Amino acid sequence: MSYTFIRGGVTAPQGFTANGVCAGVKQATSDAITKANKANESAVIPNGKRDLALIACDKICTAAAIFTKNLVKSDTITVTREHLQNGRAQAVIVNSGNANACNPDGYEKAAAMGRLAADALGIDENDVLVASTGVIGQPLPLAPIESNIGRLKNLLSKDGGTNAAEAIMTTDTVKKEWAVQTVIGGKTVTIGGIAKGSGMIHINMGTTLSFVTTDAAISADMLHEALVAAADVSYNMVSVDGDTSTNDTLAILASGYAGNTEITTKNEDYALFLEALTAAFQAVAKQLAADGEGATKLLICQVSGAKDTQAAKTIAKSVICSSLVKAAMFGADANCGRVLCAIGYSGAQVDDVKKIDVAYASAAGDILVCQNGCGLAFDEAKAEKILLENEITIRITLGDGDGQAEAYGCDLTYDYVKINGDYRT
Amino acid sequence: MSYTFIRGGVTAPQGFTANGVCAGVKQATSDAITKANKANESAVIPNGKRDLALIACDKICTAAAIFTKNLVKSDTITVTREHLQNGRAQAVIVNSGNANACNPDGYEKAAAMGRLAADALGIDENDVLVASTGVIGQPLPLAPIESNIGRLKNLLSKDGGTNAAEAIMTTDTVKKEWAVQTVIGGKTVTIGGIAKGSGMIHINMGTTLSFVTTDAAISADMLHEALVAAADVSYNMVSVDGDTSTNDTLAILASGYAGNTEITTKNEDYALFLEALTAAFQAVAKQLAADGEGATKLLICQVSGAKDTQAAKTIAKSVICSSLVKAAMFGADANCGRVLCAIGYSGAQVDDVKKIDVAYASAAGDILVCQNGCGLAFDEAKAEKILLENEITIRITLGDGDGQAEAYGCDLTYDYVKINGDYRT
Repeated sequence: MSYTFIRGGVTAPQGFTANGVCAGVKQATSDAITKANKANESAVIPNGKRDLALIACDKICTAAAIFTKNLVKSDTITVTREHLQNGRAQAVIVNSGNANACNPDGYEKAAAMGRLAADALGIDENDVLVASTGVIGQPLPLAPIESNIGRLKNLLSKDGGTNAAEAIMTTDTVKKEWAVQTVIGGKTVTIGGIAKGSGMIHINMGTTLSFVTTDAAISADMLHEALVAAADVSYNMVSVDGDTSTNDTLAILASGYAGNTEITTKNEDYALFLEALTAAFQAVAKQLAADGEGATKLLICQVSGAKDTQAAKTIAKSVICSSLVKAAMFGADANCGRVLCAIGYSGAQVDDVKKIDVAYASAAGDILVCQNGCGLAFDEAKAEKILLENEITIRITLGDGDGQAEAYGCDLTYDYVKINGDYRT
Repeated sequence: MSYTFIRGGVTAPQGFTANGVCAGVKQATSDAITKANKANESAVIPNGKRDLALIACDKICTAAAIFTKNLVKSDTITVTREHLQNGRAQAVIVNSGNANACNPDGYEKAAAMGRLAADALGIDENDVLVASTGVIGQPLPLAPIESNIGRLKNLLSKDGGTNAAEAIMTTDTVKKEWAVQTVIGGKTVTIGGIAKGSGMIHINMGTTLSFVTTDAAISADMLHEALVAAADVSYNMVSVDGDTSTNDTLAILASGYAGNTEITTKNEDYALFLEALTAAFQAVAKQLAADGEGATKLLICQVSGAKDTQAAKTIAKSVICSSLVKAAMFGADANCGRVLCAIGYSGAQVDDVKKIDVAYASAAGDILVCQNGCGLAFDEAKAEKILLENEITIRITLGDGDGQAEAYGCDLTYDYVKINGDYRT
């Protein structure tokens, strides 16, 4: 392990500043819904919640991003993709409270939002990445962004990263930021990030908005390769509710200030960078799952002994996605049938279901509940004690091969239903 | 439409009798869990709920069945499959309260259960189909079955079908039985059935236990063909929670008493039989969805204008399975973003997402909430009124082709979480 987690977020790497303010996008969108869906372009009284974030670098960075696989996409993704064609970027503007998805004027407004940030920063509009998160199918109110971008630009600072993390939250209950350091070619490289995500989280880059900065010198191509590889074992292994959003974006900007020799191939330096990035992303994945809408518990499903890695991944994801497993974990019910069931319908090849073992583990101990595919007599009181903890590992061992994988999820609770029974207003 | 729904269930067709009693399987299983999972083979005090059903014909029938696609299967399925190899059967024995799945002695006990029924009826044990439903991974207590099978056999009657329907229920809140008549070659043919299913219901024969009887004369091969075809547009289009059970069984027995010329090819008579069977199965599918665990609403997703039937099915199922759509329907929230989102990640080919319309309809009217892929301004009060009904149709129109399909589901509620937070005890 060659990396160290440190305090901080997107402003930890050299060259980056950020901040987040309450511009009133959330309030204007909510007002518009109660007034029969007409976007409120007049002055709004902000509700106090930060909803506009800006991240900027003092130089042009190499950059890469990956996006939702949903066919129904926010137009902000189209704009960001266009701006990233040259593999460079200098700033990111993000609003919460309105996804700017499924709107007739979505593209124009996403482009205008990027332009507002570029003008305020005095940079090329093509160097601004744009992202939105919130309600789908509601016109994006631009006025709050227009009237607050100047103030936000003036607030950009090294201390503002936490406010940016707060400004991209929707139903999240905790803000997510992280920073990690590693040494590449004798130079200290810092990577930092913020993320949001709570509901509509699933295993196809079904993630969230996540913005990552680094001072590593690394080409746009290698940044993209590293993003994909790290996301594959982190963001792509998280599920809260099986729904993939229209706006998922994971973007990274690299300033090069660390002074390492630029990474342009998959060499040892790349491996070090990827190791740190992957560790950070897996930590974020757990944070996202633990903060799943209504969640009271983080669930980690560890699969080993599967036919191959793919089978292990498929099984881990199937278990973590099962509504019945999730509800049983909420109720601290050590039901092994639901886990076996989710393995059986996962679609993964299982050579011998009579070789499956299932155990539950937490800070309170561990207990085997299924051996050789059959339910075991176990101590119910002990099992309940284990399952009452807030981080539960479901450990599945198969007898098919060497494949292993880990997936992250959360329990299904009354509050998930409550939050999603009336999300818009 | 050449068929008519009539009152009755599995005993409506000529030749069949049935009944259901409280044998104490549920109680013995529940007692065993609280006593550290040791099967209680001693006398139990039944809790009053019927949990053992027997359906019998006074002659040997042609028969067919289809089963769960889950790799983890109850041993009752192995036994029933073996007994059906010759395409004939005369009786069905079913218990609820214990699934007899994932047990080391499951096969022996399933075979013994069939033998107990065969001995009581004085028929060949190979002519008895066996099914179980309930908790997974708990040894099946045979004593309650052994001590009650004689009484149950003596209770077999034309009036006992409803008791049989009741005896196969687990978390179901209403018993499901149905009968339908059609005329084939001048002869009145009756088909009847009972079904159970409430949770762990999904679109891969993820259904339930369902037992169907008919007095039609029809070969085992044609019975099987008709079962598969009818299930494809009914049982295979229902989802409650995305979980496929280990025990799903849909079996049919045909006595031939109606006197029609035996159906042995896919001729006009077969088409009439299939039409009636399909109509009945679709009615059952709606009943299963409406009685989904914790459900307050039946959701019907109608898709038209899709590229082809397969695309329409994929989209309808994706929408009906979305936790976010289900929670929004519970909250009477006319959110169109979640429907668009579920279309987008369904995996179905959609040529132009800008041609998607979405409307909600119920007994209280209908309302268009999305046109050409964009959210519409609509009357929120009217939408809420429509969504407060207990049967909601989500109507999706695409501009890609002629494909259409219908899927059945239910809302996601606090009670689903409650029921599944502690199911076993």
